[in-house]
Amino acid sequence: MKNHFNIAIVGLGNIGSEVLRYLNKNKKNIERTTNSTFSINYLSARNLKKKRGSSISKKLWIKNPVDLVKKKNVDVIIELVGGAEGIAKKLVFGALKNKKHIITANKSLIFKYGNQLAQIAEKNSVNLLFEASVGGGIPIIKSIKESLVGNKIFHIYGILNGTTNFILTEIEKTKKSFKEILNKAQKLGYAEPDPKFDLNGDDVKSKISILSSLCFKTAILNKPFLTEGIENIDLEDINYAKRFDYKIKLLGISEIVNNQVKIRVHPCLIHKNSDLAKVNSVNNAIMVEGSPIGKIVYQGLGAGKGPTTSSVISDLNSILRNNLSNPFGFSYKSARKLKLFDFRKHTCKYYLRLSVEDKPGVLSKITSILSKSGISIQNFLQKPVNKMYSSLVIITHLAVEKRIQFALKMISKQKFVKEKIVMIRIRDDKKL
Amino acid sequence: MKNHFNIAIVGLGNIGSEVLRYLNKNKKNIERTTNSTFSINYLSARNLKKKRGSSISKKLWIKNPVDLVKKKNVDVIIELVGGAEGIAKKLVFGALKNKKHIITANKSLIFKYGNQLAQIAEKNSVNLLFEASVGGGIPIIKSIKESLVGNKIFHIYGILNGTTNFILTEIEKTKKSFKEILNKAQKLGYAEPDPKFDLNGDDVKSKISILSSLCFKTAILNKPFLTEGIENIDLEDINYAKRFDYKIKLLGISEIVNNQVKIRVHPCLIHKNSDLAKVNSVNNAIMVEGSPIGKIVYQGLGAGKGPTTSSVISDLNSILRNNLSNPFGFSYKSARKLKLFDFRKHTCKYYLRLSVEDKPGVLSKITSILSKSGISIQNFLQKPVNKMYSSLVIITHLAVEKRIQFALKMISKQKFVKEKIVMIRIRDDKKL
Repeated sequence: MKNHFNIAIVGLGNIGSEVLRYLNKNKKNIERTTNSTFSINYLSARNLKKKRGSSISKKLWIKNPVDLVKKKNVDVIIELVGGAEGIAKKLVFGALKNKKHIITANKSLIFKYGNQLAQIAEKNSVNLLFEASVGGGIPIIKSIKESLVGNKIFHIYGILNGTTNFILTEIEKTKKSFKEILNKAQKLGYAEPDPKFDLNGDDVKSKISILSSLCFKTAILNKPFLTEGIENIDLEDINYAKRFDYKIKLLGISEIVNNQVKIRVHPCLIHKNSDLAKVNSVNNAIMVEGSPIGKIVYQGLGAGKGPTTSSVISDLNSILRNNLSNPFGFSYKSARKLKLFDFRKHTCKYYLRLSVEDKPGVLSKITSILSKSGISIQNFLQKPVNKMYSSLVIITHLAVEKRIQFALKMISKQKFVKEKIVMIRIRDDKKL
Repeated sequence: MKNHFNIAIVGLGNIGSEVLRYLNKNKKNIERTTNSTFSINYLSARNLKKKRGSSISKKLWIKNPVDLVKKKNVDVIIELVGGAEGIAKKLVFGALKNKKHIITANKSLIFKYGNQLAQIAEKNSVNLLFEASVGGGIPIIKSIKESLVGNKIFHIYGILNGTTNFILTEIEKTKKSFKEILNKAQKLGYAEPDPKFDLNGDDVKSKISILSSLCFKTAILNKPFLTEGIENIDLEDINYAKRFDYKIKLLGISEIVNNQVKIRVHPCLIHKNSDLAKVNSVNNAIMVEGSPIGKIVYQGLGAGKGPTTSSVISDLNSILRNNLSNPFGFSYKSARKLKLFDFRKHTCKYYLRLSVEDKPGVLSKITSILSKSGISIQNFLQKPVNKMYSSLVIITHLAVEKRIQFALKMISKQKFVKEKIVMIRIRDDKKL
């Protein structure tokens, strides 16, 4: 059993600097808890001169972090660079091939190359740990791998992106527009200067893919699946949702249906009294359902240097305690091979908001298209926007995705439709 | 590294039978995940002839389970007998002394003898694991020991008893009396035939003591601390609470205040919109606050054979994977020695309900006692019960526990007071 570990930290931004500060401050505590010692032998970042909380010793500096993979005095690399390609990719592949443990917060990398990386880690008996990649400080990955190991999990879903949850919460609270709130989020540091991957659902896509693989013991399914963001949602939708006792949340969802993986990312109308409806601002929440445990919920801060550091330290602790585990909790060879559920067969209720010209025949045309598509209406609301336009809000009865998509295509072609139709899936109590 | 483990299960009631059934059914899965094999070599229970889901092989039967501690072909004992004394105590002490791993759901035993047991386990390098003792299926113990290991935790609190939470939820929902709902709970199997230890707070006392020790890295504080149950609460209180936007929950709370442990169990009025207010029926929920993680919440079923089995299997998994950890996550020698906070110094708002004779001078006497005790009133409500009696409901401003206790003593002495005064502490947003 190894009892001294040489560590390198690559990436000293907001999170990397905090991890470094934490390790320097809590060295003795960690060593006492783990019965191992460690030293930080190398540090690397794009810019040595950038102002950081603590000063960086020049002796530890390494210019090209990829050189670390061959260094004898490196056992553990903490990768906090990010991105699925470039330095992060070279570093992590190289490190695992050279039998060095990896700790990373890099969801894009794990999503894209997790299968290959897991194989290398398993073959070389090193750890590839990524607790910080999903849910910030929420210890969901270790929980699924170790604490829920005895369960057959059939459903995982949750709010996995703090930026979009903050935006949706703030729009509702302040009654301001999407655009105004996005600006505010950027000023507060809750949204990136380019917030595209948060808003379009891509961030959640990586995260739910990782969780799905952990829960259902499959390789990461690198096939396209339904991923929608919140770009089209505005105050108006949130207000209408409220009128029908719903809140709008961006959810990542994966479940086993007929031995297939039904995975998707989309905004959802959920009942205002449901557990997830009450998760506000930058918080994340994850629900896991399985047998024999039943349902379990985790909630906490989904991002930020504090929660992320907590997760990185948890991973480091496992390594210092000489715990070795397969990256996804199962041997790559035993991964289940499950097909993707054809989402066109999905059924749920749908919320539709249309901006249409206020003239005779419009309503009749729309209802006729819906009726021909086999979609029946549960609630209907018409509200004039000005002398020329009206908002139509429709809540359907249970309908099939394929038919809704067909109907929306037909309705969109009508000249009286003035804006992109907003369609949001509804979760009733029992079904997502 | 050991790769075959001999297991004995002692106690084959509701939970023990389920664990046995689970292990038989999932043997191959568990062995593949852990890279170890196991066999169940002994079973023991009070009554061999009792009807169980699966039949018990007589070959595995051992009459006196305490004999197991000396058996060479036993590595792990799963103790599901319960109780702090008797067989469970002898078995667990004996097993650890003889270098056998213990998995237990026995909160009373860990609360009473956890310090001694942890010392023996640490000395003999065996595991003493008790995930199932707190929070049913919620993996709170492993989470604190491993995932939150990098945090300085300063506050843990939650709903830790499913029976009392079910009763409080049902009284509110059905508007029936405490007594009627208790009967219902017993019929449904949510309350024991003798529900004393659930109702009087003792069950939560053991649980919050265990959690407090894990979080604050102290020995279990075997000193008396404030423990109140829900026996005195009735529909009337739940209705009044609602009127002031509160719900009543039985909480276990422990926090660090001025380097002292402020631990207690009591019912609490909490705001109807707070996270815990929404945790209903037999669910448990646990909040942990620490640095750098911030606040994290766990929620799930607090009891039952399914969730408990999930926790037992998680513990077994750790052992089969050759993970060795100190029972409370730290070495017994390094346990912090913290004093108990003097609860008489606690401040909060208080809810008081008095049943008094409806005659002149009563109100003046009560308000005079409160005023002399330095307690000021925030809300006051008087409601006639019949021609002779009235209910008085008082919500105080922030007050000191010692003064409230003094005032209650003085008021109780008054002849016009007809029943035991109900006093419930109030949690406002920032303070418990």
